Amino acid sequence: MRTVFWDYDKGELMLIDQRRLPVELRLVNLRSHRKVVQAIRNMTVRGAPAIGAAAAFGLVLAAYGSRARSEDMLIQVIEAAAEELRLSRPTAVNLAWALDRVLDLVHSHPGSLDELKRAVLAEAQKIADEDVEINMRMAVHGAVLIDDGDTIIHHCNTGALAVVEWGTALGVIRMAYQQGKQVHVLVDETRPTLQGARFTAWELEQYGIPYEIITDNMAGFFLRSGTVHKVFFGADRVAANGDVANKIGTYMLALAAQDNGVPVYSVAPTSSIDLSLTHGGLIPIEERDPAEVLGIKFDGRRIAPLKARARNPAFDVTPARLLTAIVTENGIVYPPFEENLLKYRSPQVHPSR
Amino acid sequence: MRTVFWDYDKGELMLIDQRRLPVELRLVNLRSHRKVVQAIRNMTVRGAPAIGAAAAFGLVLAAYGSRARSEDMLIQVIEAAAEELRLSRPTAVNLAWALDRVLDLVHSHPGSLDELKRAVLAEAQKIADEDVEINMRMAVHGAVLIDDGDTIIHHCNTGALAVVEWGTALGVIRMAYQQGKQVHVLVDETRPTLQGARFTAWELEQYGIPYEIITDNMAGFFLRSGTVHKVFFGADRVAANGDVANKIGTYMLALAAQDNGVPVYSVAPTSSIDLSLTHGGLIPIEERDPAEVLGIKFDGRRIAPLKARARNPAFDVTPARLLTAIVTENGIVYPPFEENLLKYRSPQVHPSR
Repeated sequence: MRTVFWDYDKGELMLIDQRRLPVELRLVNLRSHRKVVQAIRNMTVRGAPAIGAAAAFGLVLAAYGSRARSEDMLIQVIEAAAEELRLSRPTAVNLAWALDRVLDLVHSHPGSLDELKRAVLAEAQKIADEDVEINMRMAVHGAVLIDDGDTIIHHCNTGALAVVEWGTALGVIRMAYQQGKQVHVLVDETRPTLQGARFTAWELEQYGIPYEIITDNMAGFFLRSGTVHKVFFGADRVAANGDVANKIGTYMLALAAQDNGVPVYSVAPTSSIDLSLTHGGLIPIEERDPAEVLGIKFDGRRIAPLKARARNPAFDVTPARLLTAIVTENGIVYPPFEENLLKYRSPQVHPSR
Repeated sequence: MRTVFWDYDKGELMLIDQRRLPVELRLVNLRSHRKVVQAIRNMTVRGAPAIGAAAAFGLVLAAYGSRARSEDMLIQVIEAAAEELRLSRPTAVNLAWALDRVLDLVHSHPGSLDELKRAVLAEAQKIADEDVEINMRMAVHGAVLIDDGDTIIHHCNTGALAVVEWGTALGVIRMAYQQGKQVHVLVDETRPTLQGARFTAWELEQYGIPYEIITDNMAGFFLRSGTVHKVFFGADRVAANGDVANKIGTYMLALAAQDNGVPVYSVAPTSSIDLSLTHGGLIPIEERDPAEVLGIKFDGRRIAPLKARARNPAFDVTPARLLTAIVTENGIVYPPFEENLLKYRSPQVHPSR
């Protein structure tokens, strides 16, 4: 089952509601692009690639839901919906990339109103299908980095739930396991919203891969103990120099790995690479609701004093110097990233803008 | 009010029950050394110096609760109680130190049964009183390290609740604030048991010191942003070379500070220095109940899948190379720690064994 998929019978977008996991597996159906904006904001759907696909389907909902009588009016409706969707989460580049890809098609598409709507749906479906294919390719490339018997620290959730299907960093681990390699995963719980303890643990449970949950601040202890062989995580955005914006805590994890000589791998589709940013300092970092820190998001229990205030940056930037390699669907990119990222980009998945 | 104190009317040990904070401030009274063992284990009392004082009073309870008819029998009772108390938390050296101090007295004390009991109580009271005095001296020494306008990241709880009164690292911050320096504290929540979000935030609220809570994995983000001036934490044990065992997460915090040129200070009484250990790798690290990681200890809510397993090391070791200085009651100790820690030890608070 896909995390994000189009129901062709009802003309609705279906999502696995991630707010209920690991307690229950529940689907939600969305009938307007505003509901998609809301679902992205409140993390019903999360993970950069899943958000990208959901946003593209959001434009499909805007197109089919519109009463526009001319192509120009329809294009305006789609453009307006794209702007709303674009603001729903600022850090993930896949979101903007997926929206721009549909917008490019819309702007270049000749044909009737109905043809245009169908073309938007076909493009969104293609984005989702390509995501699955790209995940499988990343998994195959990345699996060679994992040895039989490896203990791996994994941050956040980068599995099937974070993408349309299969997973990025967790997809690599899953592929290695399917190839018969014994692996053990130390799962960073990933405060504040606990994507590790909730989603990654739940997925590993389904796949039968051995794991233990740790709090994020324990990674350094295990890395220093000499029992960890690799560190894997995804990426929300990769700058031209290889700096990686990813879930908060990634930077401290990568630093602790480097201090102990443990290789660090970011797994990300080339659609996450943003060559317009020369370095990671230029990546906008979303700051989310402090309530996530003051309590436990999962059930809303408060842990801090009543008057307490909190900060909540959702991402941080890991400098390229801490990365051993970046795994993409086109192969494993090693330093110097500035040169090599250019070589590995797929022209076909990046329509020239 | 003290966190740990002897009720002379009732002959009982009184503790602030830290499991209920920040929701309510409740006292518990303990009438046997076994109750003290339990209180240390279940973290009714926590923080190395508070545990040390509580353990010393535990020996008082054992002495007064004993029906021993000879001095030798009483000494055996006290020795047996000391062994039970010693095992309650393996990492904090203050615990063993306080117990040994009372045992030394017991072994060298001539006199009647009643005189011996009174002497044990007087020694425990002295350990508690000295702790308060030592905290004030650390605070005065350390406050010079803080400048007006500083933003400080603080890990775990090292305030009045972690000691008998006043605090170690938080005591330094509190002293600087009382001296009129404006400070802003970024409070690491300190998973798994949330000593930061619960106790440190609660204390700062009482003192009127501005603060914001962050999750532990956010410290790197703020350190990289260039807005943090200093990092402060306590120590559960300091090895002869300056390696510091402290609450889990300290190592990753110190590493992130060093990567960004931010000074790192550990504040610890000289009773935390264990010269018998040449380096931090020899410090035993307690692994606590995985349930603390699988759920939120504060209210017992589970966050992970039902079958999930977890690890829970309670401390880690920060290598001396990451420390700018160690603040003691005898002054600020700078590297080389191997040499300088020896100079700063107080002979009077370390009875030769």
